[in-house]
Amino acid sequence: MNPFIFENPTRLIFGEGQLKELPKQLAPYGKKVLLLYGGGSIKKNGIYDQVKGKLAEVDAIVTDFPDIESNPRISTVRRGVEICKQEGIDFLLAVGGGSVIDCTKAIAVGAKTEADMWDVITRKASYDGALPFGSILTHAATGSEMNRGCVITNWELHEKRGWGCPYTYGQFSILDPAFTTTVPRKQTALGIIDIMSHVMEHYFHLEKNTPIQDQWCESLLRTLIDVAPKLLDDLGNVQHRETVMLGGALALSDILNMGYRGDWGSHQLGHALSAVHDVSHGDSLAVVFPNWLAYVLSSETIGRLKQFAENVFAIDGKGKSDRQIAEAGIQALRQFWTDLGAPATLSDLSINAADIQTLAENTVQFTAEFGNFKKLSREDAHKIFEMSL
Amino acid sequence: MNPFIFENPTRLIFGEGQLKELPKQLAPYGKKVLLLYGGGSIKKNGIYDQVKGKLAEVDAIVTDFPDIESNPRISTVRRGVEICKQEGIDFLLAVGGGSVIDCTKAIAVGAKTEADMWDVITRKASYDGALPFGSILTHAATGSEMNRGCVITNWELHEKRGWGCPYTYGQFSILDPAFTTTVPRKQTALGIIDIMSHVMEHYFHLEKNTPIQDQWCESLLRTLIDVAPKLLDDLGNVQHRETVMLGGALALSDILNMGYRGDWGSHQLGHALSAVHDVSHGDSLAVVFPNWLAYVLSSETIGRLKQFAENVFAIDGKGKSDRQIAEAGIQALRQFWTDLGAPATLSDLSINAADIQTLAENTVQFTAEFGNFKKLSREDAHKIFEMSL
Repeated sequence: MNPFIFENPTRLIFGEGQLKELPKQLAPYGKKVLLLYGGGSIKKNGIYDQVKGKLAEVDAIVTDFPDIESNPRISTVRRGVEICKQEGIDFLLAVGGGSVIDCTKAIAVGAKTEADMWDVITRKASYDGALPFGSILTHAATGSEMNRGCVITNWELHEKRGWGCPYTYGQFSILDPAFTTTVPRKQTALGIIDIMSHVMEHYFHLEKNTPIQDQWCESLLRTLIDVAPKLLDDLGNVQHRETVMLGGALALSDILNMGYRGDWGSHQLGHALSAVHDVSHGDSLAVVFPNWLAYVLSSETIGRLKQFAENVFAIDGKGKSDRQIAEAGIQALRQFWTDLGAPATLSDLSINAADIQTLAENTVQFTAEFGNFKKLSREDAHKIFEMSL
Repeated sequence: MNPFIFENPTRLIFGEGQLKELPKQLAPYGKKVLLLYGGGSIKKNGIYDQVKGKLAEVDAIVTDFPDIESNPRISTVRRGVEICKQEGIDFLLAVGGGSVIDCTKAIAVGAKTEADMWDVITRKASYDGALPFGSILTHAATGSEMNRGCVITNWELHEKRGWGCPYTYGQFSILDPAFTTTVPRKQTALGIIDIMSHVMEHYFHLEKNTPIQDQWCESLLRTLIDVAPKLLDDLGNVQHRETVMLGGALALSDILNMGYRGDWGSHQLGHALSAVHDVSHGDSLAVVFPNWLAYVLSSETIGRLKQFAENVFAIDGKGKSDRQIAEAGIQALRQFWTDLGAPATLSDLSINAADIQTLAENTVQFTAEFGNFKKLSREDAHKIFEMSL
């Protein structure tokens, strides 16, 4: 493996009833809390009231910041930064899924700089600290609750950018699996696909001597493959929700990718898709990932793809060539996701051949090459999108 | 699983050549550094000079604190505390294995309190912060480099106590596998046994719904079982050293035991042994652990022991009863450790039947019962030591 530095200071507070920890967690900070959330599902399922109750216990002065959209936009970030500065906010509390947490991270940094946050995210301006923030997760998917990353979309420029800095680790993340039992079937499935994609983005690499990391990735994938259909048949099952929620937090916590660099090409393809068509992250990955795998299959990568097929999907290699085993693994992944109800083609997302040129260009708007397992160009992106039609 | 809180703020700086990071890591702290180490092996293998070179780069004012013994003693801790206070030390830098790091943690806390550290460790007095400290690991074994725990021995009282607090996380730990290539064969093997024991202390529990954690434990054990004989045949192999070193840091980092409580009965038995006979930690575990497993095998625990046998040692269950499979797993563990050159019996450590009464009493000197996988009493401890003769 390669030399690396791992750190993740976010306090993970996990399990049913752990919202009870919130007052203690807020104690070190000032009273003025910005409460950030999405479209209002937390008001319907009662989480909003529970959180407000806990905030009342510490006499917090709460300003609501609702309506954060999926694929959160820089315009929303700017609005949040403005409020933080106007109101003298002390602490940001995100209640929601990855979009809400991502948006909160960007606002937290924006509140401490005079620069425009899009300039910060596009590395044209620097940052200068952040307001402290915490998260209460209501949807297992992006892993934003346990890392420093965020993805912000500039809808005017059709750009979707990943970014993070040492200040974008939350102080704490409260993960109560019971808070996710009302997530509908479709979103639950897409969350699992997102989590699996994160693990696979790590897993597909060519670095040597990573036996612990490889097996941990395989273990997590096998667990998700086992639990996903059970959960989709029984959405209120807290034990299954627990497994997926822990898996989601671990998948992108930097624990799995110690000592090597994953690929992230599929995410770049997916982000390009979401930036142009406002397709959900999970949908875009479900379509793109298996086609990316099929495209990058080569003599150099076949060993890892075979290992994936055998160790993750238990493909029986008897009488098969390495290529047949690898292809059977890709097919098993596609089938598994289709069985979960995910889209399999761009057509399923109402995207057609005429759109591909733009998508391919969008993929390489920041770098001419992308991916690490195999370096890809605009032409490669074009071909992968064509395979995905 | 049970609700839990996970946090581990220590920055893990891993890989060949990572000592280069030291000056940057020390930058936030004052210049007066206490340099703590053991019996002087770091002077022979050149690590001492390399570290001193890096300290010179930041104009550190260095006070040496050598001769920390294995099973570090409270008398040594008191001596270190005294020096910190006299010299106005700003930062503690531990260079060594678990004993040096454990001792450093206790000194760091002792330097910030007027209470005697034995009173703090035995929970009779409280703590009030700690001097910041970092570690440079030279032996993969205890995992102290990535957690807040330490074990300190009071030789006068024949007590060996585990302790930790929120201030005993290091600021950073530098893990260069090349720094461990001069560890002799015997100590290398005992380190691996210690690491495996940590994973197994987690793994043997009765909590439900821990599929990720279980498989991660199994993965880590399989990896160590695979790499250990290769490393013992080729002690200078940096890749194998790397695998073991990462495994050791992960094993006791609290990553593996999210949502459940492990057993730790074998450690309590082992500590009792070391407190009376000054036997090394790895030796004591090698003798006690398989006998503990055989002793706790029951209708309640057999499922987990069978899973261990099949998933860790690949015992083929065909035609065998569950008990036979479980027993084959225990036997495989014993054989594996014996093959590594570890002692198998108390006699190998020159301890005989006449000593057992004292050992058993020592095991329960703090609590009448111990262990979680199965609760054990003094009588149980006595029987396990008898089985170990």
